[in-house]
Amino acid sequence: MTNLYFEELEIGSRSTAGPYLLGKDEIIRFAKQYDPIPRHIDEEAAAKSVFGGLTASGSNTFAVYILLSSQLQPHYQVLMGLGWEELKLTNPVRPGDALDLEMTILELRASKSKPEWGIVRNKNLLRNQKRETVLECISTIFVARRPGADAPSAS
Amino acid sequence: MTNLYFEELEIGSRSTAGPYLLGKDEIIRFAKQYDPIPRHIDEEAAAKSVFGGLTASGSNTFAVYILLSSQLQPHYQVLMGLGWEELKLTNPVRPGDALDLEMTILELRASKSKPEWGIVRNKNLLRNQKRETVLECISTIFVARRPGADAPSAS
Repeated sequence: MTNLYFEELEIGSRSTAGPYLLGKDEIIRFAKQYDPIPRHIDEEAAAKSVFGGLTASGSNTFAVYILLSSQLQPHYQVLMGLGWEELKLTNPVRPGDALDLEMTILELRASKSKPEWGIVRNKNLLRNQKRETVLECISTIFVARRPGADAPSAS
Repeated sequence: MTNLYFEELEIGSRSTAGPYLLGKDEIIRFAKQYDPIPRHIDEEAAAKSVFGGLTASGSNTFAVYILLSSQLQPHYQVLMGLGWEELKLTNPVRPGDALDLEMTILELRASKSKPEWGIVRNKNLLRNQKRETVLECISTIFVARRPGADAPSAS
């Protein structure tokens, strides 16, 4: 597996990871610890909720997104995440869903303060087996520049 | 405990929750499942990393933020989360950190499509025992209107 440096990335390039199968036991166990509300932990209560059945906590879905981020192919020389914009949970995640991640590069720019780092802005889509998007966001990450690469004159 | 309806909320009002003590065992267990990189799971590797020691996965920090959201006082009649903007992990979270949440209302508006719902935009700060912010974001949630309340004329 080769990790791509900043110089090897292009706007529009895609990386993918998954699928990750999210089972009922994991949904309930996660929610009991971090989001103990009836529609995430109690099947009977969940059946009566607006979603008509058990759904994963949003932070469980976010954790799966972060896990899949670490498995993206092709992979980048990621140094650190800077943050996320426009994070939305657009559809419920249900037991047995198989989730996959697609990340597309939106923007590339050199860091002015850290010449050995590049800044990469990405659109992320986490989708289920029906191709419905369950989580979307824009992430910004630092990616290492190739050692010895010239800094671009425009930065 | 009373849950506040949309009509009872004011811009600038604050709710708080915590502290939540995040221990080393939890950091390692969470990261082994959802973010298995050395600086979150291996103390020796972490000591050599840029943070100089074990740090929590960002999704573990996010999960603690969601958990504390459910414990905020005063509490609102929250129907659903709509999403997050400008989510940033501004400082590392370390074993033994005691995290508390402060949420401040930025904006209140009636839903045009759902007259029984109000839309509330909030600034969220998750801080450690040294009062450093470790996670910040803007959240948007739906809050129930008081049953029988008149819809405001301006919506």
